[in-house]
Parts: sequence; C-alpha cells; structure tokens
Amino acid sequence: MSTVTEREALVGACLFGQSGGPTAVINASAAGVFTEALRSTGRITHVYGAAYGIDGVFQERFYDMAQESPEELHNLCYTPSSALGSVRRKIKSEKDLQRILEVFQKYNIRFFFYNGGNDSMDTCNKVSKYLLKHHYACNVIGIPKTVDNDLVGTDHCPGYGSAAKFVATNIMSMYLDATVYQKGQVTIVEVMGRDAGWLTASAALAARAGCGPDLLYLPEGSFSREKFIEQVKQVLKENRSGTGSCFIAASEGIRTADGKLVASQPALAHDTFGHARLGGLCRVLESYVNDALPSVKTRSVELNILQRCAAYLASEVDVKNAFEAGRHAVRSALEGHTDRMVSFQRSSASGGGLGARFTCTLVPIDASANSVKHVPDSWILPDNRGMSEAFFTYAMPLVQGESKAPFSDGLPRFARLRKILARAPGSAPHVRSSL
Amino acid sequence: MSTVTEREALVGACLFGQSGGPTAVINASAAGVFTEALRSTGRITHVYGAAYGIDGVFQERFYDMAQESPEELHNLCYTPSSALGSVRRKIKSEKDLQRILEVFQKYNIRFFFYNGGNDSMDTCNKVSKYLLKHHYACNVIGIPKTVDNDLVGTDHCPGYGSAAKFVATNIMSMYLDATVYQKGQVTIVEVMGRDAGWLTASAALAARAGCGPDLLYLPEGSFSREKFIEQVKQVLKENRSGTGSCFIAASEGIRTADGKLVASQPALAHDTFGHARLGGLCRVLESYVNDALPSVKTRSVELNILQRCAAYLASEVDVKNAFEAGRHAVRSALEGHTDRMVSFQRSSASGGGLGARFTCTLVPIDASANSVKHVPDSWILPDNRGMSEAFFTYAMPLVQGESKAPFSDGLPRFARLRKILARAPGSAPHVRSSL
Repeated sequence: MSTVTEREALVGACLFGQSGGPTAVINASAAGVFTEALRSTGRITHVYGAAYGIDGVFQERFYDMAQESPEELHNLCYTPSSALGSVRRKIKSEKDLQRILEVFQKYNIRFFFYNGGNDSMDTCNKVSKYLLKHHYACNVIGIPKTVDNDLVGTDHCPGYGSAAKFVATNIMSMYLDATVYQKGQVTIVEVMGRDAGWLTASAALAARAGCGPDLLYLPEGSFSREKFIEQVKQVLKENRSGTGSCFIAASEGIRTADGKLVASQPALAHDTFGHARLGGLCRVLESYVNDALPSVKTRSVELNILQRCAAYLASEVDVKNAFEAGRHAVRSALEGHTDRMVSFQRSSASGGGLGARFTCTLVPIDASANSVKHVPDSWILPDNRGMSEAFFTYAMPLVQGESKAPFSDGLPRFARLRKILARAPGSAPHVRSSL
Repeated sequence: MSTVTEREALVGACLFGQSGGPTAVINASAAGVFTEALRSTGRITHVYGAAYGIDGVFQERFYDMAQESPEELHNLCYTPSSALGSVRRKIKSEKDLQRILEVFQKYNIRFFFYNGGNDSMDTCNKVSKYLLKHHYACNVIGIPKTVDNDLVGTDHCPGYGSAAKFVATNIMSMYLDATVYQKGQVTIVEVMGRDAGWLTASAALAARAGCGPDLLYLPEGSFSREKFIEQVKQVLKENRSGTGSCFIAASEGIRTADGKLVASQPALAHDTFGHARLGGLCRVLESYVNDALPSVKTRSVELNILQRCAAYLASEVDVKNAFEAGRHAVRSALEGHTDRMVSFQRSSASGGGLGARFTCTLVPIDASANSVKHVPDSWILPDNRGMSEAFFTYAMPLVQGESKAPFSDGLPRFARLRKILARAPGSAPHVRSSL
C-alpha cells in the first residue's frame, strides 16, 4: 500500500462520475469538482468526466472536461439531471473490479470522485478497497447526493434541500388550489422516499407556513387503512381549512405493519438493485377514501420526477453545498486523503437557526454502507399530525435562498457541454461523442 | 333600458367574483380590479369581493376589499389559486337570476366583474342579459382566465402563459432526467386540456429549446392506438436523443375517432357542468407501450394541478396581462360599457416577435359562448411531430419574463387577506369571516 506521503504527492489524471437518480443540484457538485480540478494543473494532468458513471469506465468513454468553457461549467450549477449521464449498475464480480483497475492504469487515473447515493457509495467503496488491496495509488472520494437524504454519516445530502423546497412550495400552492371551493375535498400528494421520510416530512414546512398538510405518512411509521380513514374523518370533522377539506402527504414507501408496500400492485416490477418500482400510492389511498367516504371529492397528485429536477426552484443553500462538496472532494484528494466520503457538519456556532452554516469534512467511505438514516421518531408528531419543531430547525436552513437559474427567452438556459471524448493514451485524435 | 349617458354616470357598489378552476395569475386580475376600483371613490361607493364567486351573491357573502392593505392586494399578483374562493355552479333557472337581481338591488351593485373561463362567461352573460331585460342599470364586464386558452374572442387568456411556461420548463427539466441513462425509456407526460390542445402544444416550446417531446397528442386530432405505437417505434428507431428514448406529451382530452376519451375509465364521473372528470390518460398510454414493447422502460407523469398553481414560475407577461385585464374591466365599466368581455389584441406594430405587445379591448360578452377556440390544424405538424413556427410566434411572447414572486424564509410569501365580511345595508357592524 502507498504511504500517506506518496498519496500527498500523487500526480495523474482525475476521473469524476455521476451515479443513481438525478437531483436538481447534482451537476453543481460536478461544477465544483471540475472547477477545482482544472485549476490544479500542477498535480492533475487530465480532468475526465465518465459518461454514464461507472459504465463509462468499462467502456472507456471519458469526456475531456478541459475542453468545456468555464461559463458552461459554471452553468452546470443551474442545470438539473446528470449532465454526464448516470447509471444504476452493481459491481458484481472481481472481474468488474479488475477491469476498472486496468482502465485506471491505462489512463493513469490517480484521483477518483464518485457522486451518488447509497448504492453508488457502495460502488465507490468497492472500487476504493480493491485499489487499496492491489496497491494502486489512487485517492478515492465519494460525494453524497440524494433527494432521499437517507445517507448515514452526514448532516444532510446535497439534493435534499432543493427537493424539500420544491415539495413545500408546491404543496403550499396546491393547498390554496384545493381549498378554493366551498365544498371540501380530500387531496393526497405522493412524495418520493422508499425507506426514509425526509422528503415527505418537508411537506410539514408548508403546514408551518399555514398552507400545508393536515396528515403526513412516512415510511418510519406503519400504515393502517382503518387508522388512516379514522384520521381523515377526524380532520374533516375539525374543519380546519373552513371548507371541510383534508390535505395529505404520503411517502411512496409507506408499508403496513406486516411490511407490505401500500403502493404494491399485482405485477410489481423491480429495478436493478432489487428495489420495488413504486408509483400509484396516491391512487391506492384515494381509493380507500372513495370507498369509505363516497360523497367526498378526492384528488391525488404524484409529484413524480419533478421533485428531483426542478433546478429553477433549487435552494440556494443546496446549490452552494453541492458545489462545495465537489470542491472539497478534490482538495481532500490532493491532500492525500482516500477511501473517504464528503460529509456535511452543521456549524454549532450559528445556533441552528435559518442561517445555520455547513462545513465539509470527511468520513469513512463505507459510513453509509448497508444502512439508512431514518427520520427520528421523536421528530414525528403523534397521529400523523406532522413534524415537531426539531424537524423545522433541521430542515429550514436547507431550503433557504432561491436559485439564480438563468432563463433565456422565457425558458431555462441549461449548460451546453461540448462532450468531447478524451483520447485513449496512444490513440488517434479525439472525436465528438455521438451520444 | 338605461341609456349610455345613464351608464356613464352610474354611481354605486362594485362586485368582483372568481369562478371556475384557478390559475397561477387569476388573483392578479383581482388585484387589477381592486386597485382600480378602490381609487375610483367618486363613482364606486363600495368594493366587494364575492366569496366563492356567484355563490357569494346567493349567500350575500361579500368581503369589504377597502379593509385590505394595499401591499397585500398587490401581493395577490404572486398568489396562486382564487383568493376569494371559487365556484362551479350553473345558473339553472329564472329563480336564480331573480335572486341575483334582488341582492344587487339590496347592495346597490352597479358594477359587476366576473372572472373565469367558458362556463363562467356563460354565467356572466346570463346575469348581464337578465339585468338588461329588467332595466336594472349595472355595468357588467367579464374578465377571461383559463389555462386552457380556449376562449373565442381574445388573442389569448390570462393564465395560459404561466401554465405554458410551467409545462415547457418542467418538460425541459424532465427531458434531461429521462435521458440520463444509457438505456432509453419512453416517458409520457399528461397535460391539462379537455377540448383544446393549447397547453399540450406548449410542450413544443421545450422541444424548440432542444429538450422536449418527440411526439405530441392534442385533442384537435383523433387518437389511434395502432398509429401511436407505430410512431413510438419510429422515434425509438431514429434514436434522436442518443439513448433510444422517446418523450411524449399528451392532452388529457384526446379522443379516438369515434369520440371516446382515451382516458375513459370504467366508472367515469362527471363534474357539475357535465364534463367528464379526467385523469390517468398517461397511465393508459403507458399500458399501450408496455403491451406493445414489453422490454422498454416506461414512465408516466401527470402534471396535474401544479400546472395551474405555480405562481413562483409565472410568466411576467402573463401576470401583467392578468392585472391589466382587471384594470381594463373597471375602467370600461366606469366609461359606461356593459355586457362585454375584456379581450386581448396583439399589437401589429411590434411584429409578433418575443416582444409582442398586448392591448385590452372589449368584445360582446357572449363572444365565447358555446364555442371552443381550437389550435389551428395548420399549426400542428404531421405525424404528431410537434408544432410549426406559427405556433412558436404565437406562444413565445406569452411565456416571457420571470415572476417576481416574493419568498420569505425560503418559501413563497402569499398574500394575506383579512377577509372582513361587508355589512348588509342596514345591518349590524361587520364581523370577521369564519370561512
């Protein structure tokens, strides 16, 4: 194994990849990585962006990021989705890892940054451990991102703040829309979150602002159809909106006491990682209400992928944090750190108010392995009535500030990357990517 | 019947009501009406806002708008949904109209403004004609609004521009999200529009910006499942996104050649006006793709009510037009006009570019009665491949500029109205509304 001194002095190419589901600010981390790496020419010989995450390594498809304009790289901060392409691929075998090492050697990749959630950190961890085991000196840093906010080892994950701002803002807007008639209605909004309720909890920020859900259902609790109907009836009886309405936010991942997904359908498909493919939870809940209260008007809304790609409504704090996470990864790698994940710490000095400050630090790359960070039970009010002040103290600083996303002719102006494929060492001149 | 001279000199109370489905800018028209009416104290003795549209007349529930702060009235420009409450109620009988006249007499209402779409203009027209027939001098002006943009007699309807901007912006964002993996997928987005395809057509603005649908399905064409599948296969074959993807936008109101709604479900409910309640069209189309192309990944997204209540993403041109429509209604009524609807004309001097200017004028209030303004056939490209340049010239000026919607602590700051109920003439002092 290389020594720390060797690691501190490493010189070579750097490779950055994006993995898993996109977020509104995942490209801001890319911008942070590229900006910092491109100014570190003394140590970093080439700045590569992997096409489609780890698939780009297998296929040796690397974009030469030095050929992009600084303006467009900066504009990545306001461009949703994964600009380099993403992947959901599990590292399944020693053969996969051998191939990765082979490509790293061929391109002299000495700095590797991988941006993703739980599954992607697992990939990053496997690569890191394999390189260590085979004494290939390469500093590996994982960069967290996920709208689910369920990574262990960090105060929060970039992507969550913007998704939370989207959820809260749109629920406030829909709440006004849903209480417009004199005759009440039951509105059910389905929010992303397979295992953890962070994003659904953000709907409570709308309630705090006076335009939000009466009832919240998180995966942290177990769901009972009977209890649900009783709670809806109770809210309708209380008539808090003045129109006999009930507004509900529920996570796609809620389960019954015996562990069954409420959203489960006859033909339940699964994604590559064996997760159930969810959808339609709000329709299931709507059918429960229709069945029990046939005279009550109902409406169900699935926020769907909008909640993870609305860069135009991103939280400014989230954009900055995402950018900073990318920059911190590069700086840490240059300092000789490896086998680590960037983590956010909340500044205790600032007291946790709206203006709480966040600093980047490092944790072991496997800090988040095989575990999910759940919303603390004590932050959830009894009877599905929302979230406690502790949650607001946690979440409010993450949704502060509005994105400065540029518009052109009335529509978003996304980053335009040239995506020039890098030459393999010793090969013919570079060509424009056909993808 | 009163003469024009009498109408020019009318003095009395004014009443404004909101009706039908909300839009992102409907309250901007309310702000325009209230601002103009409150400064016309010489002629307008009271400024009333009807609670829940025409229902407020039947129930004599009028808010005293003079008791609201000018700041909050201005903030209505950035507050979605109907701030006074809305209604979907048909004027069914002579008895209804008698009751309306009775209340107008009681409150000395001499100026009546009603803000809504086709059905609401029908209500406004009936009230206007009844008052004329019974020689009750009251100047009645309809103010158009609808995200559907299907009112005859006006260049466009306030509400459409913001909905179009929301649809185009979010489709651009989702397009990036949907093409992020190396393996392609078919994405189907369902857009509002029962009878006319204006809003679905706005998805083509995203395509024009390079991130938009391959295929568009509007109610103006007839839908064939076989043709649809052939077109999807053709797009997948062309591989335009580079990932073998196909992105589709479809209107909730598309029908087969024999007039059946594609979205129709076993138990099809109807709203008060006898319109079928739609929803789930995207799931129907998704099932067609799953059936014909079982190996292709699919995703369906219903934009749902978000497209009509996202004031934070409103078009600045739309906000201004909506405000101006309200102001023009009041000015016109004070000038003695009645039985008219505010209409927008596009300034020919400005040539129809992005900076096209719009001016308010008046048309007969029944200009839009019993008819729907469809998207011209010649603006729709063959084979569902999108919209022509003529549509872009029409729509682009309507989505220009970004809303200045205020945020506070990271979330929208909506208008806070006091909603003080007006005293009935000769009654006890006013009380705070319990609604």
